[in-house]
This record gives sequence, structure tokens and C-alpha cells, in this order.
Amino acid sequence: MADVVRADPVEILRALIRCPSITPEEGGALAFLESLLRAAGFTVHRVKLTSPNTPDVENLYARFGDKGPNLCFAGHTDVVPPGDPEHWRFPPFEGAIHDGLIYGRGAVDMKGGVAAFIAAGLDFAGANGWSGDGALPGSISFLITGDEEGPAINGTEKLLRWLADRDERIDHCVLGEPSSRAALGDMVKIGRRGSLSGSLTVHGKQGHVGYPHLAENPIPGMVKLLAGLQAEPLDRGTEHFQASNLEVVSVDVGNPAFNVIPAEARARFNIRFNELWTPATLTAEIERRLKAAAGNEVRFSLAIEPRNSDSFLTAPGEFVDLVVDAIATATGQKPELSTTGGTSDARFIKDYCPVVEFGLVGTTMHQVDEATPVDEVERLTDVYAGIIARYFAAFGR
Amino acid sequence: MADVVRADPVEILRALIRCPSITPEEGGALAFLESLLRAAGFTVHRVKLTSPNTPDVENLYARFGDKGPNLCFAGHTDVVPPGDPEHWRFPPFEGAIHDGLIYGRGAVDMKGGVAAFIAAGLDFAGANGWSGDGALPGSISFLITGDEEGPAINGTEKLLRWLADRDERIDHCVLGEPSSRAALGDMVKIGRRGSLSGSLTVHGKQGHVGYPHLAENPIPGMVKLLAGLQAEPLDRGTEHFQASNLEVVSVDVGNPAFNVIPAEARARFNIRFNELWTPATLTAEIERRLKAAAGNEVRFSLAIEPRNSDSFLTAPGEFVDLVVDAIATATGQKPELSTTGGTSDARFIKDYCPVVEFGLVGTTMHQVDEATPVDEVERLTDVYAGIIARYFAAFGR
Ligand SMILES: [Zn+2]
Ligand SMILES: [Zn+2]
Repeated sequence: MADVVRADPVEILRALIRCPSITPEEGGALAFLESLLRAAGFTVHRVKLTSPNTPDVENLYARFGDKGPNLCFAGHTDVVPPGDPEHWRFPPFEGAIHDGLIYGRGAVDMKGGVAAFIAAGLDFAGANGWSGDGALPGSISFLITGDEEGPAINGTEKLLRWLADRDERIDHCVLGEPSSRAALGDMVKIGRRGSLSGSLTVHGKQGHVGYPHLAENPIPGMVKLLAGLQAEPLDRGTEHFQASNLEVVSVDVGNPAFNVIPAEARARFNIRFNELWTPATLTAEIERRLKAAAGNEVRFSLAIEPRNSDSFLTAPGEFVDLVVDAIATATGQKPELSTTGGTSDARFIKDYCPVVEFGLVGTTMHQVDEATPVDEVERLTDVYAGIIARYFAAFGR
Repeated sequence: MADVVRADPVEILRALIRCPSITPEEGGALAFLESLLRAAGFTVHRVKLTSPNTPDVENLYARFGDKGPNLCFAGHTDVVPPGDPEHWRFPPFEGAIHDGLIYGRGAVDMKGGVAAFIAAGLDFAGANGWSGDGALPGSISFLITGDEEGPAINGTEKLLRWLADRDERIDHCVLGEPSSRAALGDMVKIGRRGSLSGSLTVHGKQGHVGYPHLAENPIPGMVKLLAGLQAEPLDRGTEHFQASNLEVVSVDVGNPAFNVIPAEARARFNIRFNELWTPATLTAEIERRLKAAAGNEVRFSLAIEPRNSDSFLTAPGEFVDLVVDAIATATGQKPELSTTGGTSDARFIKDYCPVVEFGLVGTTMHQVDEATPVDEVERLTDVYAGIIARYFAAFGR
């Protein structure tokens, strides 16, 4: 514990890696953070969230200070499974350090980010170096879920609602996901595209290939609909976003015979979309394109998946500027303001406050031998400390 | 046996139905025919055909007379499985007669046809009514396989080669498959289209939907190739054949995820083609169309299934005329000369001699409660007897 009290992000990270917190297991990770934060004077809430047909998940919210503004660091301690531990150079839940790298599942995604912002937060709270001259300029808080890599049902989204129900306000948020591309500090995410998935079924009539006039093959209709769906781009992109993109990810008939015309063909697609669309306007556009391609000939049905994610964008301005400045000072990089990549929990946070994502280099995430350089964990802690300092200089009371 | 010696096609059919000869089981059906035919003076060969990785199959060839011309009746005693016998009105292997219908698996396809031509053949052989005044005008023979409903590897095709190897010549052939559509005699098949199957694979590169530029989705390429494959008809049909037709019977990717761009897409197709094509010219045309649609963008591979079937056509002429006349006389119908439908063993026979297909009404074949009217089995026997008489009047020595 002695190391940890000095807020050493590397030792915090190694302690977190030793917790086998594969989604939805808490694995001791949140209990460890709770003890650290309570010792430093944080108010800590452990929040177990439940819903039918999905596992219960442990989450944590901790705050230091009771006035605004409240700068929140968000993240997750759950990790994806390590696969066969035999394939790892060092055991995935040990936290071995070798040649300047810390190995372990979650080192990058994102126990490294959590360790860094926890260390910066402990310093802010006075455990190690915050001078605390007079009244606090605001609060800092941590919003940590155990359900980011899983269904994300009993995680950040519900935890934010739980906070709102308690009138707990967050003013700005930094999500510590691995946002850097090749070098720490080369990229910060100020937005993410939204994601909408759907399934398309073309209905025909089964029959024998020798008697096609007695059957109705759904496959030519499917070919027509898929061609129509992708004939025109959805948009050309915007100032901050690349163009929205539709990918057909599967087409399936499952007919094992060569002499049978099948009754049905199914396709599944996913759209990554920018701020020009919402799930509702996009659904309407998909329906319009399918109807135009189908004419009176092709019978189809469309099902949109219930769990879509909206896009988010935190437009450049004072908050983004101070984050960029903290990154540049600590890393010497001029970070690209990016909106590329998959979705993240920022899609939930953006409904409550501006949010940006900044963290380690993501190249080894979800892979065997996931690892992060020791010195990047330390520099990331400097970035987060710099964000805290600049934030309260700009927004503090 | 007494009934049978009188060459009653209905009792022969019932005896055959009682043999559970589900492919590749002989089920006693060929043994029964062998005893009947030997008793009537036929030379009978039981031919067991074998090949690796496919079941051994019993077949039968029997001949009465030793000079030409040799009129052969061809067929099969194997049947498709009955499914759950509980779903049948009468047990599938009993041969129950009810309200003028004989029920049982194979009643229509094609133990009914076999029973009818065996009865006609026994009569020809003098067992029941052939006057036999002087020397025989030629020979009649039966070529009966137990592998028509199965892989058709150890059946008619090999049996014909076995005959050729023994210098056993067939001059004309009537295949007793259920060729009638709604009433006995309304259709005779003078040809069948060929069949060629193939598989198409479009190769891409797996990736995440959030980073499509790092992946290569094979599905748009597949859509392009399938559209190109079907943009133009293969032909417009010929005097005796409808147009050749390509059906894509399956398209499969098998990607369970919405966020993954798959590495590969596969499609399978079948072509039914007329005498304008051979498997070789058709394969070349498919390759040409795919290459044109693919351009330099789509990487694909094409695999043609090894077991294709060529088309056959027995052009109208003296042989077809006498068959039509026998049908018209016995049934009062003017049969349509058809070349529609699936493939049959005639695709093998056509390499040795002219062949036509005539038999019962096929509507209940392969179904629960497969059944044929008693009187149609008797009239079919009259048709076959009429063909024998007209054949030897026209071609006999
Ligand atoms: Zn993550
Ligand atoms: Zn058949």
C-alpha cells in the first residue's frame, strides 16, 4: 500500500492487472480502487446494476469535493478474455515488467488509463502533492464501470442515470480510453460516429430449380436491394467527421442443396454515421432506398436493432483547447482532433456534458501480450494532472 | 405367386411397395423381379456396383430374346425415405388399396412404372398372352437400378458401361419415370435440360466496421458479380427447349457480428441448360461474365461441381411417333412433347440410344400419402404393351 499512497500509477496499474476482472467479473478491481479513494477522502459509491437476462455488474462512482464544477474521469476496469494464457509471453493477470513494458490484459484498454487518472486524482485530493491552498476550486470524480467490454447494459449508461436521479451533476468529462494511435498524445477523440445495425429479409417462395416459374427466388431481389442500398454515399462527411458509411456485414441463405430455390434471403448491415444523421432519420433513409430498389417486385422486411448508438461531438473550444494544451505540454505532441473509430461510452456521457477521450496507444489492446510502456503510463498521469490544473484555472470557482 | 404369373401390374406394384427399398437398400425388390423374370425365361443379371466413399448398390439387367433390335425399359426400384410413417394414411410399405388408389412410398416414383413395364414384358415373353408365332422380332430388356434417388454413382451410368463392356447393345429406351402432369398420357418427355452447379467465392479482408479503409468487404463485390451473372439471359430457348436458366441458390457469409467486416462471401448456383450449351461452353461463359463484372476490383474464385449432367433430346421422328401413338390409343390423350423439369437417368442413356420418358402422374411423388390410381397402373401397362407392339412392327426383324 505504501507505493500506492504515493500515487504511483505504475503500481496502481500492476495491482489492477492482478485483478482478473473479465466482464462481468469485478475481480477485486473496484474494491481496490474503493479502498484507495476512501483513504484519500473521496466519497465512494459502489453501484450494482441489474437487469433481466444480462449479468449483474459492479460499478463505482467517487467524488472529491462537493461544489461545482465537477470534472469527471470515466473508464472501465473490465477486460476482454485473455485467450490461452500459454500464448502470452508473461501471464495475463500478473503485471510483469520487462524491458520498460508492463504486460497484462487491460494494460492498454484501459486499466492503464484508469491507473493514470486515479493517480492524478489522488494527487489532486492532497494525498500526494495537491497544495490545497484554501477552498477547493471544484470537484473531481471518477465514473468507473465493469461493463464496457460486455453488453454495456448495466454500465455507464445506467450509472449516469443513477447519478442524475441523485442530482449529481457532471460538468465536463475525460474518458480514458486508449485514443493515441502511434505515440502517446498524437490523437485525442472529440467525437465518435454513431452506429446503427439492421437486418433485411427478402421473401420468396421455395421450389425446385427445374421449375423456377413455380418458385420465387429471393436472391436476385436481395442483390437488387443491396445494390440500391449502396448506390449512393450517405453523405460526404462534415467539418469534423468523415463520411457516414454503410457496410453489409453478412448475407445468408443457408441452403445446402443445389437443386432447391430457397424461400428467404437475409442480410445484416451496420452504419457508422456522423452528426448529419440520427438513428431515426437514418432508418427513414434506409427504408426509402429499399422501397425504391424493391419497386413492386421484391417483398422484403427490415428490422432495426434496438440498441443503436448516437454520434457525439464536442466542438473545439475552451475545454478541448485545455485538454490539447495539457497533452502537448506533457508529451510534446500536437494531438489530432479525431472523430474516427468505433463507439465508446462517450456516446452515453455526451447526453450529460461535453466529453473528450484521451489515453494510451491502443495498438496491443484486446491482443495477446497487451502491454504499455512504463513511461507512457507516467506521462499519461502528467497529462491528466495537467488537465485538472488547467480545468480549474479556466472553470474553477 | 399365382397372381403375379398372370402379370397383374397391380399385384406386382403392391409386392414392390412391400419391399422397403430406401436408397441404397435393395429391400427385396430386385430379388422379387429376378424371380419373376427368370420364371418367364429372361436372362437376368444382378449387378452389384461399388465405388469408394459411396454405398454399394444392387442393380438388375434382364433380357428376353437374343437378337436386335433391343427395346429397353429403364427404371429404378429405390425410393426416397417415407418420413414419419405416422403421418401416412396407410403404412408406406404396405401397398394398401383404398377407393381405387394404391398407397405407398414409390407407388408413383417409380415402382408403378416398373410394375407396368414388367407386366407388359412378361406378356411379351409369352407368360401371359404373347402369341409368339414364329421367331421373336427382337429383344426386350429391363435396366433397373437401386441408386436413382441417391448419389446415382453406382446406378444407371455404370450399369450402361457394364453392358457396353459386354457388347450388350440397347437400341431404343423407354424410361418409366412419372412423366404425366395431371392425367395419364398428357405429357411425354423427349428431352431434359442439363444441369451444372458451381460455387463462387469473393475474397476480401476482414476488419472492423469502424475502420473500413483497413478492410475489404467482399459483399459489394459479390453483389456486383451476381448482378453481372444474371444481367443477360443465357439464351432465348430453342424449338424443343425452354431458355436455359441460372438460379443462385444460396449466398452465405456466416458472420455473426454486426461490427466485423467479413473476409469472404460465398454463393452457389445451378444452371439448367438446353442443347445450345455443354458443361464446357457454359463454364467458359460463366467465367467470362464473372471476369467482366469483377474488372480489376473484385477478387473471386469459381469452382464447378464435378458431377454435371448434360442435356438430352430425342428429336421427334419414328420412335417418338410410335410412343405417342401408343399413349394416345391407351389413354385417349394427345401427349405434349416436353423437355421441362429436373434431370433423370435419361441423361446417361442418351449416350447409348434414343430415349423417351413416359410414366404415371407425378403429383404425389416424394410426398406423404404417395398414391396412384389402380386403373392408371393398368392403362400404363397397356401403353407399354402398345409401345412394344408398335416398336417391333416398325423396327423388328
Ligand atoms: Zn476500452
Ligand atoms: Zn424417379
